[in-house]
Amino acid sequence: MTASTDCAYIQQALGLAAQALFISSPNPRVGCVITAPNGQVLGRGFTQQAGGPHAEVMALRDAAAQGYGVRGATAYVTLEPCSHHGRTGPCCDALIEAGIGRVVASLADPNPRVAGQGFARLRAAGIAVDVGPGAEESRELNIGFFSRMLRGLPWVRLKAAVSLDGATALGNGVSQWITSPAARADGHAWRARACAVLTGVGTVLDDDPRLDVRETATPRQPRLVLVDSRLDTPATARLFDVPGREVLIYTAAAQDDPRAEALRARGAVLVQLPDARGKVDLAALLRDLAARGANELHVEAGHRLNGSLLREGLVDELLVYMAPTLLGAQTRPLAHWGPLQSLQEGLSLQFHDVQRVGPDLRLVARVQGRAGG
Amino acid sequence: MTASTDCAYIQQALGLAAQALFISSPNPRVGCVITAPNGQVLGRGFTQQAGGPHAEVMALRDAAAQGYGVRGATAYVTLEPCSHHGRTGPCCDALIEAGIGRVVASLADPNPRVAGQGFARLRAAGIAVDVGPGAEESRELNIGFFSRMLRGLPWVRLKAAVSLDGATALGNGVSQWITSPAARADGHAWRARACAVLTGVGTVLDDDPRLDVRETATPRQPRLVLVDSRLDTPATARLFDVPGREVLIYTAAAQDDPRAEALRARGAVLVQLPDARGKVDLAALLRDLAARGANELHVEAGHRLNGSLLREGLVDELLVYMAPTLLGAQTRPLAHWGPLQSLQEGLSLQFHDVQRVGPDLRLVARVQGRAGG
Repeated sequence: MTASTDCAYIQQALGLAAQALFISSPNPRVGCVITAPNGQVLGRGFTQQAGGPHAEVMALRDAAAQGYGVRGATAYVTLEPCSHHGRTGPCCDALIEAGIGRVVASLADPNPRVAGQGFARLRAAGIAVDVGPGAEESRELNIGFFSRMLRGLPWVRLKAAVSLDGATALGNGVSQWITSPAARADGHAWRARACAVLTGVGTVLDDDPRLDVRETATPRQPRLVLVDSRLDTPATARLFDVPGREVLIYTAAAQDDPRAEALRARGAVLVQLPDARGKVDLAALLRDLAARGANELHVEAGHRLNGSLLREGLVDELLVYMAPTLLGAQTRPLAHWGPLQSLQEGLSLQFHDVQRVGPDLRLVARVQGRAGG
Repeated sequence: MTASTDCAYIQQALGLAAQALFISSPNPRVGCVITAPNGQVLGRGFTQQAGGPHAEVMALRDAAAQGYGVRGATAYVTLEPCSHHGRTGPCCDALIEAGIGRVVASLADPNPRVAGQGFARLRAAGIAVDVGPGAEESRELNIGFFSRMLRGLPWVRLKAAVSLDGATALGNGVSQWITSPAARADGHAWRARACAVLTGVGTVLDDDPRLDVRETATPRQPRLVLVDSRLDTPATARLFDVPGREVLIYTAAAQDDPRAEALRARGAVLVQLPDARGKVDLAALLRDLAARGANELHVEAGHRLNGSLLREGLVDELLVYMAPTLLGAQTRPLAHWGPLQSLQEGLSLQFHDVQRVGPDLRLVARVQGRAGG
């Protein structure tokens, strides 16, 4: 097989991996293509929901369902096959038992329980292993998984909708809708890929949003994470109205606070994480969310919570929908911090992706030094 | 000739027209390609500086210089050949005299002294005339010329450099430099194509800029236009230090104001255009600039003058360089207007062009209804 052939099959596998975008959390998004020595595709698969089969097993099953033998075949997979028993058996063993002759993988699994052991086990079984094609794309697709594995933190993506002159709302608070229906639908797709959506009590009190995924089809709702130092969230808030969605409330208030009971009655899980100032310790919140399996955290909050997250260096990426409109002065900014005294105090980012979405722009900008987690 | 062949030669002619970008003002940017019946290119040309030859004459000269006859040839030209005696003879006559057999033109000249008469004269001389290929591109290239001819106003392009969160300066006024050297050089190319650069006395007092074209090669400096109601501009301002550049100061102050003499001594031309409130009448200023031959007006001003121009509906296009940085709250906005009470009061634009320039973005957005002048 030539390198270009390998790349073509890995591209197919990456396409399959992308189909796991709304599904596989907290597992990584992985795709697998199995080919015969003559290049015929024998099976395809991608990671299913947590507890379900991984990509390799799906591809082996697909081949079997079509009556294809895979002895001596090549498996193209976008992440190192797992070597450990999680909720499923190790994919390595499945590939070895099936008689796969060669494995081409995009990159090593950062999970310390795998981290090269998958490749080692395959090689020990006499399987040829090549690593590299599609590494960057696979890592991008799993930016949150890599962040959680390598940093113990979710990849924090702060979403905002702004005017061309930087307003997220008028001075009187009006913000619905600065951006277009197309941008809002696109924003729901980014919610859908996240493991959790974070907001603050200010947004709940101002706008009473549900913050669920509505405008794109998804088999699962991300968790809702609420920062509410004093438990000011009313038990009647609409965010509790999403069936089956887990709601985590991080607070500085005591667990026996009288308001806690009403929130627990609505199904919320309360987590007490106060900092020295009686606010929620945001860094600790992120570590806790990672421990709960959150790969990508989607922040849709007001300028105060945005400002706190940015000031504390906790944001990795901005997802900004920009409408072609000017809203003038005395508007609400994207984030409340400053005033700065010099430009060097600003937060430096890099534009990672720029797309038109309907009449608006979608800008993805990453904090310097965070690209790739 | 097939339509696709016509389009290919018109594209060549448009490429030539673009070479007139910094040169031909106040004349339109026009390119011309002359081809033999077998498709060979016989001559190429574009409009020279005002008073110099137009594109058609340059192409005829180019053919002659190479010893080519052009009898029966086709002339591809990106604007209707002129039929009137300006500072040069009519291009129509030159084409007829040379024996050109066919003319393909992008679109009619909006100049009321031409406006179809060029085509009529060519047809009367037995020349086949086709109009249409490249019309949109040619009009774009001459957006200011069309604006001046059809509206009696220059095309007003407001340039700003902002952070991703919309700041043009910190609260303390610091703004140098939010955007990159690449963005600033690109901005100089946009200055260079303008007929005039406009600023306000506030910017002069704050930053004392020269506002000339330095970071790109140009054979001419655009005029400098200054809005200074009370003649507060010091005669020592650096904008007077650009040799050979015309400086127009629009003021509400009397011509015999004692400060006027010192400014005239620096070479400034003072124009008194007061409105009822004792400010400069900005709409009248634009009409006056058009009468002085200004096609494209490049505005680099502070948030107050920007706000006045936007509020009065005088801006056609925004040229925004956006740096991937966040500068927080209490910064200076792009334009001082408002506060608005509803989103419907915002100024609606359309994104016309989005490009990366170095680490920054360049956004060209047009006011709704102004596209194409």
